[in-house]
Amino acid sequence: MNLELMGRNAVAAKYELQKLTTEKKNQVLLTAAKLLTEESEYLLQANEQDMQMGRANGMHPGILDRLQLTYERIEAIAEGLRQIVELPDCIGEVTESFARPNGLHINKVRVPMGVIGIIYESRPNVTVDAFGLCFKTGNAVILKGGSDCLQSNIAIVKVLRKALSMEGVTEEAVQLITDTDRAVTSAFMKMNDYIDVLIPRGGAGLIQSVVNNSTIPVIETGTGNCHIYVDKEADLDMAVEIIFNAKTQRIGVCNACESLVVHKAVAEALLPKMKARLQEKQVELRGDEGVLQILPEATKATEEDYGREYLDYILSIKTVSSVEEAIEHINRYNTKHSEAIITTNEDTAAQFLRDVDAACVYVNASTRFTDGFEFGFGAEIGISTQKLHARGPMGLKELTSYKYTIVGQGQVRG
Amino acid sequence: MNLELMGRNAVAAKYELQKLTTEKKNQVLLTAAKLLTEESEYLLQANEQDMQMGRANGMHPGILDRLQLTYERIEAIAEGLRQIVELPDCIGEVTESFARPNGLHINKVRVPMGVIGIIYESRPNVTVDAFGLCFKTGNAVILKGGSDCLQSNIAIVKVLRKALSMEGVTEEAVQLITDTDRAVTSAFMKMNDYIDVLIPRGGAGLIQSVVNNSTIPVIETGTGNCHIYVDKEADLDMAVEIIFNAKTQRIGVCNACESLVVHKAVAEALLPKMKARLQEKQVELRGDEGVLQILPEATKATEEDYGREYLDYILSIKTVSSVEEAIEHINRYNTKHSEAIITTNEDTAAQFLRDVDAACVYVNASTRFTDGFEFGFGAEIGISTQKLHARGPMGLKELTSYKYTIVGQGQVRG
Repeated sequence: MNLELMGRNAVAAKYELQKLTTEKKNQVLLTAAKLLTEESEYLLQANEQDMQMGRANGMHPGILDRLQLTYERIEAIAEGLRQIVELPDCIGEVTESFARPNGLHINKVRVPMGVIGIIYESRPNVTVDAFGLCFKTGNAVILKGGSDCLQSNIAIVKVLRKALSMEGVTEEAVQLITDTDRAVTSAFMKMNDYIDVLIPRGGAGLIQSVVNNSTIPVIETGTGNCHIYVDKEADLDMAVEIIFNAKTQRIGVCNACESLVVHKAVAEALLPKMKARLQEKQVELRGDEGVLQILPEATKATEEDYGREYLDYILSIKTVSSVEEAIEHINRYNTKHSEAIITTNEDTAAQFLRDVDAACVYVNASTRFTDGFEFGFGAEIGISTQKLHARGPMGLKELTSYKYTIVGQGQVRG
Repeated sequence: MNLELMGRNAVAAKYELQKLTTEKKNQVLLTAAKLLTEESEYLLQANEQDMQMGRANGMHPGILDRLQLTYERIEAIAEGLRQIVELPDCIGEVTESFARPNGLHINKVRVPMGVIGIIYESRPNVTVDAFGLCFKTGNAVILKGGSDCLQSNIAIVKVLRKALSMEGVTEEAVQLITDTDRAVTSAFMKMNDYIDVLIPRGGAGLIQSVVNNSTIPVIETGTGNCHIYVDKEADLDMAVEIIFNAKTQRIGVCNACESLVVHKAVAEALLPKMKARLQEKQVELRGDEGVLQILPEATKATEEDYGREYLDYILSIKTVSSVEEAIEHINRYNTKHSEAIITTNEDTAAQFLRDVDAACVYVNASTRFTDGFEFGFGAEIGISTQKLHARGPMGLKELTSYKYTIVGQGQVRG
């Protein structure tokens, strides 16, 4: 595995990709979609090798399921590429334009990032998805997938490169690191000379490792300890339905609600009603003293509970005496992902929107809407919990940078 | 030195600062400007300690000069704060606003970064400047200045904190790391729990060290190996004046021209004329074979020459046979900072603007305009050569992030 050669190939590719027309890029994506379907048999054979290895290694059934390809799943993956074709091409867009007193005319123009590195876990669909989003935005991509998915990824990338080649575009637009040695991954994270940004996609452990070891700029997609605060002035029926949705509609996702903050003035009216609704899904409640007085059968919440992303049918509950106390509690324990207030008071809502530190802050809606598709971006690379470059759902635009183009008539600086 | 305490103080401060009105922020900056002038005597005494230490250590006269404060320089520093007062406050600005089919209304709102860390070398003016820009954008800042400037920085930060206190704002809006131990600097670069972004300001060594060691997201302000390409269709008199300006107007800056690329068709007409003009400043020329044929007295350029940021009265020169070859040469050797083409052909200009990979690409103008003030930003933190978050001159907006605020009427996800 020659990482440096891969880096040089990617840099050469990026200069070619930044020149491609929208039509050419879309044509490549359509050809790739077609080839993936046509090569289903080949992909399934490669995937079966990974599945056999997974079964032999006693892989968890849930992980095995995420790893598995089927004819239907391959068709869905191909369909994902066709959806990317439908999205507008933002490359070349002039986002600002201004003239200076000396006559210089300055445009701020959207350009590709260049070379993007993606490190992810064992999901073969990510391989295609990441290629599609990076390619549509004119970026070369170097992929490092999980070793459990290696044979599937090798086969998928082979098909993607064949599609590129058939359309007369450099195959180096997508490269896969096939060496599973940890030292290689470590070296990959320090390829600053070739890679412009590194995006980890996966669990908290993977992300933490990339943040700690990469010298390349990273976009961190993080965990979500999301809160819902029910204000003293709130439609409590609405509150119950939003909590039920945010907690139970899908428990394993980063925008699920993990913690409820409730104003003491409405705790007695809200909690029994909410408990009844959440019992439909056997949600365990863990509360402070104020909660236990109303729901004596709830578990006592520990300090640790308030900091946890359960990803399970568990909800922590904290009672407060004011919106300020709610905001302080949320800012202390949240992961800066998604937070909601249920209130009928517009001033309180405005205060919450301003003072809560999170990528997405909601009034009277479920935190589950933090999602590139729900936001109308048509795609999603992940949800950023950092403040640099991109925050919240990341779509195609978040895979771009900009340059300034300046046109003069001989101006020199005095 | 308790870094963790400083981190906690900064986080507490950021929640206070994000709520401040524009009026209050401006009032603090004006009071700080006034106090700096009033306390000139105190600042000069502290600065004299640094100067004595510098002289005793045989510090280079140029560095000593940068370190020195005078009444005039303090007044200029205070004036810098007053200029920041005049700039618009971009915090709270709604940069995008859209509704979803389900009735959710989404705003993208500009917010402070939170806590900014700045590591810089021995210039006391940076201490005030960095505070002013961070404070105006509602950010708390932790400063780590050069040890050569420690007494000056302690005195300056004391005055700034007094101004904050007089205006009833938390003093922890600005904190200074006074421990000069390298281990402390190293620990500072890993304070991910408290600091949102780290900005190094200084020479290439400092920046490289921060990029390699920080686990906090970094905005890299880099070196500039800037080129001017003179096309076969060019106004050669204009070319000579732009080259003269970009090379000699100020040699020690990152947007100075370090290398000339010239089309063979105009080399004979251009080079002698250009040489005559550059001789006014005794600029040494280092060229390839094509150059030596026309200017036999020039030095032969080595491969290394083309990659160097001289910051001196030296210019490397490369002859090419096409704009494509010029672009390829530039993309290979440049530092992605500022590049210019001199041409009368609009198609060639468009090709150069699209295909050259740099923060700022010019047509018929000097590279020296890459500057926050020249761009009309009214301020400058530095010039970014990375592609993540900010590229090119960084003003106040580049010290901000955004959040999404989403207002609903009880929406849940289906």
